[in-house]
Amino acid sequence: MGSSELRSPTLNLSIACPQLTPAASTFPAAASNYCQLDELLTEEEKDLQIKVRQFMENEVAPIISKFWEKAEFPFHLIPKMSTLGIAGGTIKALSEPNHGSDASSLNTTARKVPGGWILNGQKRWPANSSFADIFVVLACNTSTNQINGFIVNGGAPGLKISKIDNKMSLRVVQNCDILLEDVFVPDDDRLPGANSFQDLVKIYSISPHTIGDTDLTDYVAYIQALSFSRVIVAWISIGIAAGVYDACLRHLGERKQFGAPLAAFQLNQEKLVWLLGWRLYKLHDSGRMTTGQASLGKAWITKKARETVALGRELLGGNGIVTDFHVGKAFCDMESLYTYEGSYEVNALIVARDITGIASIRPASRL
Amino acid sequence: MGSSELRSPTLNLSIACPQLTPAASTFPAAASNYCQLDELLTEEEKDLQIKVRQFMENEVAPIISKFWEKAEFPFHLIPKMSTLGIAGGTIKALSEPNHGSDASSLNTTARKVPGGWILNGQKRWPANSSFADIFVVLACNTSTNQINGFIVNGGAPGLKISKIDNKMSLRVVQNCDILLEDVFVPDDDRLPGANSFQDLVKIYSISPHTIGDTDLTDYVAYIQALSFSRVIVAWISIGIAAGVYDACLRHLGERKQFGAPLAAFQLNQEKLVWLLGWRLYKLHDSGRMTTGQASLGKAWITKKARETVALGRELLGGNGIVTDFHVGKAFCDMESLYTYEGSYEVNALIVARDITGIASIRPASRL
Amino acid sequence: MGSSELRSPTLNLSIACPQLTPAASTFPAAASNYCQLDELLTEEEKDLQIKVRQFMENEVAPIISKFWEKAEFPFHLIPKMSTLGIAGGTIKALSEPNHGSDASSLNTTARKVPGGWILNGQKRWPANSSFADIFVVLACNTSTNQINGFIVNGGAPGLKISKIDNKMSLRVVQNCDILLEDVFVPDDDRLPGANSFQDLVKIYSISPHTIGDTDLTDYVAYIQALSFSRVIVAWISIGIAAGVYDACLRHLGERKQFGAPLAAFQLNQEKLVWLLGWRLYKLHDSGRMTTGQASLGKAWITKKARETVALGRELLGGNGIVTDFHVGKAFCDMESLYTYEGSYEVNALIVARDITGIASIRPASRL
Amino acid sequence: MGSSELRSPTLNLSIACPQLTPAASTFPAAASNYCQLDELLTEEEKDLQIKVRQFMENEVAPIISKFWEKAEFPFHLIPKMSTLGIAGGTIKALSEPNHGSDASSLNTTARKVPGGWILNGQKRWPANSSFADIFVVLACNTSTNQINGFIVNGGAPGLKISKIDNKMSLRVVQNCDILLEDVFVPDDDRLPGANSFQDLVKIYSISPHTIGDTDLTDYVAYIQALSFSRVIVAWISIGIAAGVYDACLRHLGERKQFGAPLAAFQLNQEKLVWLLGWRLYKLHDSGRMTTGQASLGKAWITKKARETVALGRELLGGNGIVTDFHVGKAFCDMESLYTYEGSYEVNALIVARDITGIASIRPASRL
Repeated sequence: MGSSELRSPTLNLSIACPQLTPAASTFPAAASNYCQLDELLTEEEKDLQIKVRQFMENEVAPIISKFWEKAEFPFHLIPKMSTLGIAGGTIKALSEPNHGSDASSLNTTARKVPGGWILNGQKRWPANSSFADIFVVLACNTSTNQINGFIVNGGAPGLKISKIDNKMSLRVVQNCDILLEDVFVPDDDRLPGANSFQDLVKIYSISPHTIGDTDLTDYVAYIQALSFSRVIVAWISIGIAAGVYDACLRHLGERKQFGAPLAAFQLNQEKLVWLLGWRLYKLHDSGRMTTGQASLGKAWITKKARETVALGRELLGGNGIVTDFHVGKAFCDMESLYTYEGSYEVNALIVARDITGIASIRPASRL
Repeated sequence: MGSSELRSPTLNLSIACPQLTPAASTFPAAASNYCQLDELLTEEEKDLQIKVRQFMENEVAPIISKFWEKAEFPFHLIPKMSTLGIAGGTIKALSEPNHGSDASSLNTTARKVPGGWILNGQKRWPANSSFADIFVVLACNTSTNQINGFIVNGGAPGLKISKIDNKMSLRVVQNCDILLEDVFVPDDDRLPGANSFQDLVKIYSISPHTIGDTDLTDYVAYIQALSFSRVIVAWISIGIAAGVYDACLRHLGERKQFGAPLAAFQLNQEKLVWLLGWRLYKLHDSGRMTTGQASLGKAWITKKARETVALGRELLGGNGIVTDFHVGKAFCDMESLYTYEGSYEVNALIVARDITGIASIRPASRL
Repeated sequence: MGSSELRSPTLNLSIACPQLTPAASTFPAAASNYCQLDELLTEEEKDLQIKVRQFMENEVAPIISKFWEKAEFPFHLIPKMSTLGIAGGTIKALSEPNHGSDASSLNTTARKVPGGWILNGQKRWPANSSFADIFVVLACNTSTNQINGFIVNGGAPGLKISKIDNKMSLRVVQNCDILLEDVFVPDDDRLPGANSFQDLVKIYSISPHTIGDTDLTDYVAYIQALSFSRVIVAWISIGIAAGVYDACLRHLGERKQFGAPLAAFQLNQEKLVWLLGWRLYKLHDSGRMTTGQASLGKAWITKKARETVALGRELLGGNGIVTDFHVGKAFCDMESLYTYEGSYEVNALIVARDITGIASIRPASRL
Repeated sequence: MGSSELRSPTLNLSIACPQLTPAASTFPAAASNYCQLDELLTEEEKDLQIKVRQFMENEVAPIISKFWEKAEFPFHLIPKMSTLGIAGGTIKALSEPNHGSDASSLNTTARKVPGGWILNGQKRWPANSSFADIFVVLACNTSTNQINGFIVNGGAPGLKISKIDNKMSLRVVQNCDILLEDVFVPDDDRLPGANSFQDLVKIYSISPHTIGDTDLTDYVAYIQALSFSRVIVAWISIGIAAGVYDACLRHLGERKQFGAPLAAFQLNQEKLVWLLGWRLYKLHDSGRMTTGQASLGKAWITKKARETVALGRELLGGNGIVTDFHVGKAFCDMESLYTYEGSYEVNALIVARDITGIASIRPASRL
């Protein structure tokens, strides 16, 4: 499998991993090509793949360990990222940080008062909200019991934002705790037309990001809307796993370590998640992907990717705990992907409900 | 997912599983459709799928437990099987049992004598050879050290055939031990044009079947030829796993057993082997499948199928050990599929050699 | 680790496994000694261990594959078994087969009529009941809703016993389906003093054997009584796993198969179940073992033993599916042990209830 | 299982985990007591257990997340640690940091010159060497090819020490890269009586710490000496796993999260490593522990502990990636323990060599 197949220039390791010996300055071609899966991509998709890979190798890889160590975000990369034409809206949420996304929670309430609304509640985990000017907050209308959306100014009295420190995963992402204590929102800043979470998703393309321990009662309501987010998380995980595979294969080749061949097989078989990811994307693209299918993909793919990065971490031995080699970092970051957008178990139970008609997401009552 | 999607009539359980209650007389539609994978099949492929399923449900399922218990082959089904138009040649090897296939082994020798050859050696596992009239035996020419092929008459002096008894897996298949002691083969019965195992495969479409503990020195020589056989074994395993899934889903629905939903998910995710099987078949069909890809498919798919049937066996509780419910039988049969056409480990090492360039199939020397 | 450490004579393979080459006629010493665990046994316990091992090697191993194949019980061994002084009562249930044990089920009812009782119900799985003269049947008294015990004569009108055929596991054990249709039992044949399942266990030492799919409502009632049975099942599983380990180690030594060393390690580590088994037995012996501890032992040990025999089956390649080598047989039999006395999941949930105070054995209600 | 059984005061969570709600301010008793394993400890051992636990809860838990985040060592705790009377020598290596330990490597050479020796070589990973005044360096005597020991002054010309940055595991431990370029050591500073690695271990109680990717040729030489270090690593892992179990159980109790009961069982069963750790310690204590047994313990226990902390990380959901809850930190640190003192694979192969007599630690040669 030659590099030319992927048409991707190889990584300049002297920039990306300065600790490595100069002799080791080429990455193998992307490993996901073992079953010639790239053929299943269109030409545009292949072009984009290469463009993104080049950006990651040349701009991100050489500096990201330092930012991960400091738990900071490399804001200077945002302009270049936006030229890639990927995830445009989201990236622009970053370049002009004027609103954060937020997952609705029934615990946040909006009480009607003359001329506006009083919001109370608490949010955890919204990403990169520490530098947002404007927030979209979903809250339960205490009169109608429906979910409405509100625009909250970053400096609104009663709004408190605190960065979540001491993370060992996705340290580059700036997650926050948000506290709303009697925050006043004028009538004009209520999002029109949104009387349910589904409305908000449809009209405003809000992509909620939640993390594992969300109260389940609320969670079920999001499921329909979360489907595509789950496919995206699945693909991030595929990318991480493929990157770890690349790094390990190169390491194995250099170290000629015992145990390598069988480990190489184990790493490789996990990459078959690619096929499911591809199938889900095509189903989604043609408007036929179901909630259950998205959950199947998210759960299965993130689980396999988690196994892959753990195996890769192990294969790199001592180097595997130094984030300069990227694998240790991937190992830690993978934990967030495995957990958010619905934990493995939640997604598994959604699939199971789809298959069996038996819902067992709510726990049996405590005895 | 309705039965109509598959356009398959449901199984008449009162025939197939007389122990079951009449209320339970329908199978769910084939489960592999969860990600609408059937769409990836052509119309002809779908038609064949249904035809084979009907035959299996109506003709095989109702009687196979009895034959499995007795370790006998249902010869009376062969004429009907041949009308299905699947695996034609092979099935004809059964209906007119005039030659058995045989895996070459360097341990079997052919020594030139005036007017013919003297064959000595031993074969284990050739399937259904107990009722063959003619055998194709591959042997090492003691002069040239090349592999040649010979036709041996079932009644040849010095040929001893004994059925392998006491199997707990694939009990319906009649495997034999074959002993050749100074068996004479006239010059006319040497297969022309075959001076290597590869020749034999190309010219005579010999598909060798071997089982796990074959001497490795010989084994490596087969690898190239075995590629397609491995894809077939992978598909048999997919079929077994899908069947177990069907049976379990129906059982879970009837029993409403605790643990069912999560188990249903686990069973379902294993079916993703379908996608790899499909990709391998397409690669093979277009002449581009490599040895390593076939090994990847065989190893990974049979491993996943083995896990699926073990989970299915467990889910059926006590019924899972009674072969009338088919799942216990599948659990036992799966062991052969997991082991033959190269064990999991051999295939894994072939893939690993392909990926890393490091061959570690031969064991390190004994200290 | 020499054979002398265990002071056990080695198996005469020419008797036990006539298929094997004479060169291979010794078993390694029992493998469970790797961490010198035998030291934790008393001298009497070691003596008994050797006596049982000798009996198994000399009397059982050479003939058991034939009985397993035929699904028959080797009755002629019973007199010798009873001289071993193990499981005395149980074995005598066999040598003078005058009563079978039976697990209570609320589905079997006892209705008071003048002079006696009318029993109706159905039992599945009672072991070796096909040759019993007298049965102890537990039934729900329709007046008091309590469980009472009754002696039913083997020839009683309305009693139908049918052997469960077509098993692929524990084929030597004769399990039956028992049907009671208006069976009359005179007042004198009601077991005195037994008004609950617990009473029956205490007074009559009834050790119920059930298998996986028992209705859960009834099941919970047995849990207290089943504790010791679970420790026994755990020990049977330890024995099976240790035997498979012995067989594999010998096979690996002869075959020098690639992959052997790592597999040998995997097989060995599973044997650590021995330590938990020992701890549970000591706790039980001093009257302090809890229900949850027994469940922990049963679930964990049978799971590990199941993994061990599956690995062993795989390691023996083709020989692993022929029951003469014992490992294939152990692979099949292990399925019953894994399932009965409470499935893995039921036992796991009992432990979990003990730990967390949350009972989730009953499934969440169907939506 | 009450806290009193362990006689351990519960953790003051308001100090240890200030993020947690006051209501949650008690730890459950140590979980390893489920099978009353504490009974297997002597009274002194129990006293020490409680003393260490109190120190960890009151002094370490409240501050360690901050130090882990900064990748710094809490030097101010050393005086208190030394009063615990555990690992005295080692801790004193810390309180009076005048020498570091170092793993010998044949790649470091000592060449005799008039009046002393010239040392050249490179060391990776020595712990806490950044603040050492004196190093003990093992080097290969170029004349005799034997390993000798040398005392190297922290400020010796040619000695370069650089801290290994960007670790995602054991961030509190200060590992270094050490470079010796023509470092002169006078004759008086050669350790007398040490002509082999074994001598050094015996005479100077050097406990080498290595990490996974050490060149294997050297590695084998250490094995004998490493046995007890491996038991210690196994016990550190048991402690981490038990701590994660405590934290999860408490979390599960508070969150009443779905999936909890089965997860609680899974977490609990992993703790059975305790029994093996106990057995190994007793064997070591009586001078009978073998190299293979130590490797079995290290490999198996660290693997199980790794699984436990991964499960625990998952169970805590989003909180699991915030190190304040300790579980995410344990998840990362466990990676080092899993890898050093011989990777899982190296230790597995050592056990396998012991069992089978086949050494396969050196890889098969490259084709």
